[in-house]
Amino acid sequence: MPIPLRSYPAELEALLKELRRLPGVGARSAERLALWLLADAPTRPNLLAAALSGAALALRPCRHCGFFANEELCPICADPSRAGRELCIVEQPTDILPLERTGRFSGRYHALGGKIAPLDRIGPENLRIPILLERLENEAPAEIIIALSADVEGTATTSYLCELLRPLGIPLSRIAHGLPAGGGLEHADALTLESALSGRRPL
Amino acid sequence: MPIPLRSYPAELEALLKELRRLPGVGARSAERLALWLLADAPTRPNLLAAALSGAALALRPCRHCGFFANEELCPICADPSRAGRELCIVEQPTDILPLERTGRFSGRYHALGGKIAPLDRIGPENLRIPILLERLENEAPAEIIIALSADVEGTATTSYLCELLRPLGIPLSRIAHGLPAGGGLEHADALTLESALSGRRPL
Repeated sequence: MPIPLRSYPAELEALLKELRRLPGVGARSAERLALWLLADAPTRPNLLAAALSGAALALRPCRHCGFFANEELCPICADPSRAGRELCIVEQPTDILPLERTGRFSGRYHALGGKIAPLDRIGPENLRIPILLERLENEAPAEIIIALSADVEGTATTSYLCELLRPLGIPLSRIAHGLPAGGGLEHADALTLESALSGRRPL
Repeated sequence: MPIPLRSYPAELEALLKELRRLPGVGARSAERLALWLLADAPTRPNLLAAALSGAALALRPCRHCGFFANEELCPICADPSRAGRELCIVEQPTDILPLERTGRFSGRYHALGGKIAPLDRIGPENLRIPILLERLENEAPAEIIIALSADVEGTATTSYLCELLRPLGIPLSRIAHGLPAGGGLEHADALTLESALSGRRPL
Protein backbone atom coordinates (compact mmCIF):
# COMPACT_ATOMS: atom_id res chain seq x y z
CA MET A 1 0.00 0.00 0.00
CA PRO A 2 1.54 3.40 -0.97
CA ILE A 3 2.30 5.88 1.81
CA PRO A 4 -0.01 8.91 1.56
CA LEU A 5 1.72 12.24 1.02
CA ARG A 6 1.11 14.44 4.08
CA SER A 7 2.70 17.73 3.12
CA TYR A 8 4.08 19.88 0.34
CA PRO A 9 7.85 20.04 -0.30
CA ALA A 10 9.60 21.88 2.57
CA GLU A 11 10.22 25.02 0.49
CA LEU A 12 6.52 25.34 -0.34
CA GLU A 13 5.49 24.78 3.29
CA ALA A 14 7.95 27.54 4.26
CA LEU A 15 6.45 29.89 1.67
CA LEU A 16 2.89 29.10 2.79
CA LYS A 17 3.87 29.81 6.40
CA GLU A 18 5.19 33.27 5.48
CA LEU A 19 2.16 34.05 3.29
CA ARG A 20 -0.24 33.06 6.09
CA ARG A 21 1.37 35.69 8.33
CA LEU A 22 0.14 38.46 6.00
CA PRO A 23 -2.90 40.35 7.30
CA GLY A 24 -6.13 38.97 5.85
CA VAL A 25 -4.45 35.89 4.36
CA GLY A 26 -5.65 32.52 5.65
CA ALA A 27 -4.68 28.98 4.74
CA ARG A 28 -6.77 28.92 1.54
CA SER A 29 -5.62 32.33 0.25
CA ALA A 30 -2.01 31.44 1.01
CA GLU A 31 -2.37 28.35 -1.21
CA ARG A 32 -3.99 30.44 -3.92
CA LEU A 33 -1.17 33.03 -3.78
CA ALA A 34 1.54 30.35 -3.78
CA LEU A 35 -0.12 28.58 -6.70
CA TRP A 36 -0.20 31.80 -8.71
CA LEU A 37 3.40 32.69 -7.81
CA LEU A 38 4.75 29.23 -8.64
CA ALA A 39 2.73 28.92 -11.86
CA ASP A 40 5.38 31.12 -13.44
CA ALA A 41 8.43 30.24 -11.36
CA PRO A 42 11.10 31.41 -10.98
CA THR A 43 9.98 34.73 -12.56
CA ARG A 44 7.03 35.69 -10.33
CA PRO A 45 8.48 34.68 -6.94
CA ASN A 46 11.81 36.29 -7.82
CA LEU A 47 10.20 39.58 -8.90
CA LEU A 48 8.29 39.83 -5.62
CA ALA A 49 11.33 38.75 -3.60
CA ALA A 50 13.45 41.43 -5.28
CA ALA A 51 10.84 44.13 -4.59
CA LEU A 52 10.65 43.05 -0.93
CA SER A 53 14.42 43.02 -0.46
CA GLY A 54 14.72 46.37 -2.24
CA ALA A 55 12.10 47.94 0.02
CA ALA A 56 13.61 46.38 3.16
CA LEU A 57 17.01 47.76 2.26
CA ALA A 58 16.02 51.24 1.14
CA LEU A 59 13.09 52.24 3.34
CA ARG A 60 12.78 53.27 6.95
CA PRO A 61 10.08 55.18 8.83
CA CYS A 62 10.71 58.95 8.82
CA ARG A 63 11.97 59.72 12.32
CA HIS A 64 9.49 62.56 12.65
CA CYS A 65 6.22 61.67 10.93
CA GLY A 66 6.55 57.91 10.36
CA PHE A 67 6.05 58.13 6.58
CA PHE A 68 8.12 55.85 4.31
CA ALA A 69 11.51 57.47 3.84
CA ASN A 70 14.87 56.81 2.21
CA GLU A 71 16.67 59.16 4.59
CA GLU A 72 16.25 59.91 8.28
CA LEU A 73 13.53 62.42 7.37
CA CYS A 74 10.95 62.07 4.59
CA PRO A 75 10.73 64.78 1.88
CA ILE A 76 7.80 66.43 3.71
CA CYS A 77 9.57 66.71 7.06
CA ALA A 78 12.79 67.77 5.33
CA ASP A 79 11.04 70.57 3.38
CA PRO A 80 11.60 73.87 5.29
CA SER A 81 8.66 75.51 3.48
CA ARG A 82 6.36 73.10 5.37
CA ALA A 83 7.51 74.45 8.76
CA GLY A 84 5.23 76.47 11.05
CA ARG A 85 2.04 75.43 9.22
CA GLU A 86 -0.59 72.85 10.20
CA LEU A 87 0.34 69.49 11.67
CA CYS A 88 -2.09 66.78 10.68
CA ILE A 89 -2.28 63.70 12.94
CA VAL A 90 -3.20 60.47 11.12
CA GLU A 91 -3.32 56.79 12.06
CA GLN A 92 -1.04 55.21 9.48
CA PRO A 93 1.69 56.41 7.12
CA THR A 94 -0.55 55.22 4.27
CA ASP A 95 -3.07 57.94 5.26
CA ILE A 96 -0.61 60.68 4.28
CA LEU A 97 -0.53 60.35 0.49
CA PRO A 98 -4.34 60.52 0.06
CA LEU A 99 -4.32 63.83 1.99
CA GLU A 100 -1.38 65.14 -0.07
CA ARG A 101 -3.24 64.27 -3.26
CA THR A 102 -6.08 66.62 -2.35
CA GLY A 103 -3.55 69.42 -2.96
CA ARG A 104 -5.25 71.38 -0.15
CA PHE A 105 -2.80 70.78 2.62
CA SER A 106 0.64 72.33 2.88
CA GLY A 107 1.69 71.42 6.40
CA ARG A 108 3.27 68.34 7.89
CA TYR A 109 1.88 65.04 9.12
CA HIS A 110 2.30 62.75 12.07
CA ALA A 111 1.36 59.06 11.84
CA LEU A 112 0.49 57.60 15.23
CA GLY A 113 0.98 54.05 13.98
CA GLY A 114 -2.51 53.05 15.11
CA LYS A 115 -5.31 54.11 17.40
CA ILE A 116 -6.27 53.35 20.97
CA ALA A 117 -8.00 49.96 20.90
CA PRO A 118 -8.25 48.26 24.31
CA LEU A 119 -9.64 45.07 22.76
CA ASP A 120 -6.46 44.74 20.65
CA ARG A 121 -4.40 45.81 23.69
CA ILE A 122 -3.27 49.03 21.99
CA GLY A 123 -2.97 51.86 24.50
CA PRO A 124 -1.49 55.37 24.15
CA GLU A 125 1.90 53.92 25.15
CA ASN A 126 1.92 51.89 21.90
CA LEU A 127 1.46 54.97 19.71
CA ARG A 128 4.02 57.48 18.46
CA ILE A 129 3.02 60.08 21.06
CA PRO A 130 6.36 60.98 22.75
CA ILE A 131 7.86 62.00 19.40
CA LEU A 132 4.63 63.93 18.64
CA LEU A 133 5.07 66.00 21.81
CA GLU A 134 8.73 66.57 20.99
CA ARG A 135 7.83 67.74 17.48
CA LEU A 136 5.10 70.08 18.73
CA GLU A 137 7.66 71.73 20.99
CA ASN A 138 10.33 72.00 18.27
CA GLU A 139 8.20 72.76 15.23
CA ALA A 140 5.51 74.98 16.84
CA PRO A 141 2.83 74.33 14.18
CA ALA A 142 0.15 76.97 13.60
CA GLU A 143 -2.64 74.41 14.09
CA ILE A 144 -3.10 70.74 14.95
CA ILE A 145 -5.62 68.87 12.80
CA ILE A 146 -6.68 65.42 14.04
CA ALA A 147 -7.61 63.22 11.07
CA LEU A 148 -8.47 59.81 12.54
CA SER A 149 -11.18 57.36 11.45
CA ALA A 150 -14.78 58.11 12.33
CA ASP A 151 -15.15 54.87 14.32
CA VAL A 152 -15.20 54.08 18.04
CA GLU A 153 -11.40 53.73 18.38
CA GLY A 154 -10.73 56.80 16.22
CA THR A 155 -13.13 58.89 18.29
CA ALA A 156 -11.62 57.66 21.57
CA THR A 157 -8.12 58.44 20.32
CA THR A 158 -9.24 61.90 19.19
CA SER A 159 -10.65 62.60 22.67
CA TYR A 160 -7.46 61.36 24.30
CA LEU A 161 -5.27 63.57 22.09
CA CYS A 162 -7.59 66.50 22.62
CA GLU A 163 -7.13 66.37 26.40
CA LEU A 164 -3.40 65.81 26.04
CA LEU A 165 -2.77 68.61 23.55
CA ARG A 166 -5.25 71.32 24.59
CA PRO A 167 -2.93 72.67 27.37
CA LEU A 168 -0.31 73.48 24.71
CA GLY A 169 -2.45 76.38 23.53
CA ILE A 170 -2.14 75.47 19.82
CA PRO A 171 -5.45 75.71 17.86
CA LEU A 172 -6.85 72.18 17.67
CA SER A 173 -9.42 70.79 15.21
CA ARG A 174 -10.59 67.51 13.79
CA ILE A 175 -11.63 66.80 10.21
CA ALA A 176 -15.36 66.89 9.46
CA HIS A 177 -17.49 63.76 9.73
CA GLY A 178 -20.55 63.64 7.50
CA LEU A 179 -21.94 62.60 4.16
CA PRO A 180 -19.19 61.30 1.83
CA ALA A 181 -18.85 62.98 -1.60
CA GLY A 182 -21.27 61.45 -4.08
CA GLY A 183 -23.12 59.65 -1.28
CA GLY A 184 -26.88 59.99 -1.17
CA LEU A 185 -28.80 60.08 2.10
CA GLU A 186 -30.38 56.74 1.29
CA HIS A 187 -26.98 55.02 1.44
CA ALA A 188 -25.74 56.70 4.61
CA ASP A 189 -26.00 54.82 7.90
CA ALA A 190 -27.60 56.34 10.99
CA LEU A 191 -24.29 57.29 12.65
CA THR A 192 -23.07 59.11 9.54
CA LEU A 193 -26.36 61.01 9.30
CA GLU A 194 -26.11 61.89 12.99
CA SER A 195 -22.57 63.29 12.44
CA ALA A 196 -23.76 65.11 9.32
CA LEU A 197 -26.65 66.71 11.21
CA SER A 198 -24.75 67.67 14.35
CA GLY A 199 -21.87 69.03 12.24
CA ARG A 200 -24.14 71.13 9.98
CA ARG A 201 -22.74 74.46 8.80
CA PRO A 202 -24.67 77.70 8.43
CA LEU A 203 -25.25 78.78 4.82
CA MET B 1 3.95 77.10 -1.34
CA PRO B 2 5.27 73.56 -0.68
CA ILE B 3 5.13 71.04 -3.52
CA PRO B 4 2.67 68.26 -2.73
CA LEU B 5 4.12 64.77 -2.56
CA ARG B 6 2.65 62.67 -5.36
CA SER B 7 4.06 59.22 -4.72
CA TYR B 8 5.78 56.91 -2.29
CA PRO B 9 9.55 56.34 -2.48
CA ALA B 10 10.44 54.35 -5.63
CA GLU B 11 11.18 51.15 -3.68
CA LEU B 12 7.74 51.22 -2.09
CA GLU B 13 6.01 51.91 -5.42
CA ALA B 14 7.90 48.92 -6.85
CA LEU B 15 6.76 46.71 -3.98
CA LEU B 16 3.13 47.88 -4.32
CA LYS B 17 3.23 47.11 -8.04
CA GLU B 18 4.34 43.52 -7.38
CA LEU B 19 1.79 43.04 -4.58
CA ARG B 20 -1.04 44.31 -6.82
CA ARG B 21 -0.23 41.54 -9.32
CA LEU B 22 -1.22 38.89 -6.76
CA PRO B 23 -4.67 37.37 -7.35
CA GLY B 24 -7.34 39.06 -5.27
CA VAL B 25 -5.06 41.93 -4.20
CA GLY B 26 -6.15 45.43 -5.26
CA ALA B 27 -4.64 48.85 -4.60
CA ARG B 28 -5.96 49.07 -1.03
CA SER B 29 -4.94 45.54 0.02
CA ALA B 30 -1.49 46.07 -1.51
CA GLU B 31 -1.03 49.15 0.71
CA ARG B 32 -2.24 47.20 3.73
CA LEU B 33 0.18 44.33 3.02
CA ALA B 34 3.11 46.71 2.41
CA LEU B 35 2.32 48.62 5.59
CA TRP B 36 2.32 45.41 7.61
CA LEU B 37 5.53 44.15 5.98
CA LEU B 38 7.39 47.44 6.46
CA ALA B 39 6.14 47.93 10.02
CA ASP B 40 8.82 45.44 11.03
CA ALA B 41 11.42 46.02 8.34
CA PRO B 42 13.83 44.57 7.42
CA THR B 43 12.72 41.37 9.24
CA ARG B 44 9.28 40.75 7.72
CA PRO B 45 10.06 41.64 4.07
CA ASN B 46 13.30 39.67 4.23
CA LEU B 47 11.63 36.56 5.67
CA LEU B 48 9.04 36.55 2.88
CA ALA B 49 11.68 37.33 0.24
CA ALA B 50 13.80 34.42 1.45
CA ALA B 51 10.84 32.03 1.37
CA LEU B 52 9.99 33.17 -2.17
CA SER B 53 13.54 32.78 -3.44
CA GLY B 54 13.86 29.42 -1.74
CA ALA B 55 10.66 28.17 -3.37
CA ALA B 56 11.60 29.60 -6.77
CA LEU B 57 14.96 27.86 -6.61
CA ALA B 58 13.88 24.48 -5.28
CA LEU B 59 10.44 23.82 -6.76
CA ARG B 60 9.24 22.89 -10.21
CA PRO B 61 6.03 21.28 -11.45
CA CYS B 62 6.25 17.49 -11.55
CA ARG B 63 6.64 16.64 -15.23
CA HIS B 64 3.87 14.06 -14.99
CA CYS B 65 1.16 15.25 -12.61
CA GLY B 66 1.98 18.96 -12.18
CA PHE B 67 2.30 18.74 -8.36
CA PHE B 68 5.03 20.77 -6.62
CA ALA B 69 8.26 18.81 -6.87
CA ASN B 70 11.93 19.09 -6.02
CA GLU B 71 12.93 16.61 -8.71
CA GLU B 72 11.66 15.97 -12.21
CA LEU B 73 8.94 13.73 -10.72
CA CYS B 74 7.09 14.28 -7.44
CA PRO B 75 7.18 11.58 -4.73
CA ILE B 76 3.77 10.26 -5.85
CA CYS B 77 4.74 9.84 -9.51
CA ALA B 78 8.13 8.44 -8.52
CA ASP B 79 6.57 5.82 -6.21
CA PRO B 80 6.37 2.52 -8.15
CA SER B 81 3.72 1.15 -5.72
CA ARG B 82 1.34 3.80 -7.11
CA ALA B 83 1.59 2.40 -10.66
CA GLY B 84 -1.31 0.62 -12.37
CA ARG B 85 -3.92 1.94 -9.91
CA GLU B 86 -6.43 4.78 -10.32
CA LEU B 87 -5.49 8.05 -12.00
CA CYS B 88 -7.37 11.00 -10.52
CA ILE B 89 -7.73 14.09 -12.72
CA VAL B 90 -7.91 17.39 -10.78
CA GLU B 91 -7.85 21.06 -11.72
CA GLN B 92 -4.93 22.39 -9.71
CA PRO B 93 -1.89 20.90 -7.99
CA THR B 94 -3.34 22.27 -4.72
CA ASP B 95 -6.25 19.83 -5.11
CA ILE B 96 -3.94 16.84 -4.67
CA LEU B 97 -2.99 17.13 -0.99
CA PRO B 98 -6.63 17.33 0.25
CA LEU B 99 -7.37 14.07 -1.60
CA GLU B 100 -4.20 12.45 -0.22
CA ARG B 101 -5.23 13.46 3.29
CA THR B 102 -8.40 11.40 3.03
CA GLY B 103 -6.09 8.37 3.13
CA ARG B 104 -8.55 6.63 0.79
CA PHE B 105 -6.72 6.99 -2.48
CA SER B 106 -3.61 5.11 -3.44
CA GLY B 107 -3.26 5.95 -7.13
CA ARG B 108 -1.73 8.86 -8.95
CA TYR B 109 -3.00 12.31 -9.87
CA HIS B 110 -3.01 14.57 -12.88
CA ALA B 111 -3.49 18.34 -12.49
CA LEU B 112 -4.93 19.90 -15.64
CA GLY B 113 -3.81 23.37 -14.57
CA GLY B 114 -7.35 24.75 -14.90
CA LYS B 115 -10.67 23.97 -16.52
CA ILE B 116 -12.29 24.86 -19.82
CA ALA B 117 -13.62 28.42 -19.41
CA PRO B 118 -14.44 30.15 -22.71
CA LEU B 119 -15.13 33.46 -20.91
CA ASP B 120 -11.55 33.44 -19.57
CA ARG B 121 -10.32 32.19 -22.97
CA ILE B 122 -9.17 28.87 -21.52
CA GLY B 123 -9.71 26.06 -24.00
CA PRO B 124 -8.55 22.42 -23.94
CA GLU B 125 -5.33 23.53 -25.66
CA ASN B 126 -4.40 25.52 -22.51
CA LEU B 127 -4.68 22.47 -20.25
CA ARG B 128 -2.18 19.71 -19.55
CA ILE B 129 -3.99 17.25 -21.84
CA PRO B 130 -1.20 16.04 -24.21
CA ILE B 131 0.88 14.83 -21.25
CA LEU B 132 -2.28 13.24 -19.78
CA LEU B 133 -2.75 11.16 -22.95
CA GLU B 134 0.92 10.24 -22.93
CA ARG B 135 0.69 9.12 -19.29
CA LEU B 136 -2.45 7.07 -19.92
CA GLU B 137 -0.63 5.20 -22.64
CA ASN B 138 2.54 4.64 -20.58
CA GLU B 139 1.03 4.05 -17.14
CA ALA B 140 -2.14 2.13 -18.09
CA PRO B 141 -4.11 3.02 -14.94
CA ALA B 142 -6.86 0.64 -13.77
CA GLU B 143 -9.41 3.48 -13.66
CA ILE B 144 -9.67 7.17 -14.45
CA ILE B 145 -11.47 9.28 -11.82
CA ILE B 146 -12.41 12.82 -12.83
CA ALA B 147 -12.45 15.08 -9.75
CA LEU B 148 -13.26 18.57 -11.04
CA SER B 149 -15.42 21.27 -9.41
CA ALA B 150 -19.18 20.89 -9.49
CA ASP B 151 -19.65 24.17 -11.39
CA VAL B 152 -20.41 24.99 -15.04
CA GLU B 153 -16.77 24.96 -16.18
CA GLY B 154 -15.96 21.84 -14.18
CA THR B 155 -18.95 20.01 -15.66
CA ALA B 156 -18.07 21.12 -19.21
CA THR B 157 -14.47 19.97 -18.73
CA THR B 158 -15.66 16.63 -17.34
CA SER B 159 -17.85 16.12 -20.44
CA TYR B 160 -14.99 17.05 -22.72
CA LEU B 161 -12.60 14.61 -21.02
CA CYS B 162 -15.26 11.93 -20.99
CA GLU B 163 -15.63 12.06 -24.79
CA LEU B 164 -11.87 12.24 -25.25
CA LEU B 165 -11.00 9.36 -22.93
CA ARG B 166 -13.89 6.92 -23.38
CA PRO B 167 -12.38 5.39 -26.59
CA LEU B 168 -9.33 4.30 -24.56
CA GLY B 169 -11.44 1.60 -22.90
CA ILE B 170 -10.26 2.44 -19.35
CA PRO B 171 -13.07 2.49 -16.72
CA LEU B 172 -14.05 6.14 -16.28
CA SER B 173 -15.86 7.77 -13.33
CA ARG B 174 -16.37 11.13 -11.74
CA ILE B 175 -16.52 11.89 -8.02
CA ALA B 176 -20.00 12.17 -6.49
CA HIS B 177 -21.83 15.48 -6.33
CA GLY B 178 -24.30 15.89 -3.49
CA LEU B 179 -24.84 17.01 0.05
CA PRO B 180 -21.53 18.01 1.71
CA ALA B 181 -20.63 16.30 5.00
CA GLY B 182 -22.30 18.02 7.93
CA GLY B 183 -24.54 20.00 5.60
CA GLY B 184 -28.25 19.99 6.28
CA LEU B 185 -30.84 20.07 3.51
CA GLU B 186 -31.92 23.55 4.58
CA HIS B 187 -28.49 24.95 3.68
CA ALA B 188 -28.12 23.20 0.33
CA ASP B 189 -28.90 25.14 -2.84
CA ALA B 190 -31.27 23.79 -5.51
CA LEU B 191 -28.46 22.58 -7.82
CA THR B 192 -26.79 20.63 -5.02
CA LEU B 193 -30.10 19.03 -4.06
CA GLU B 194 -30.73 18.15 -7.71
CA SER B 195 -27.30 16.44 -7.89
CA ALA B 196 -27.95 14.70 -4.58
CA LEU B 197 -31.32 13.40 -5.81
CA SER B 198 -30.21 12.29 -9.26
CA GLY B 199 -27.10 10.66 -7.79
CA ARG B 200 -29.01 8.73 -5.12
CA ARG B 201 -27.70 5.28 -4.20
CA PRO B 202 -29.79 2.22 -3.44
CA LEU B 203 -29.69 1.13 0.19
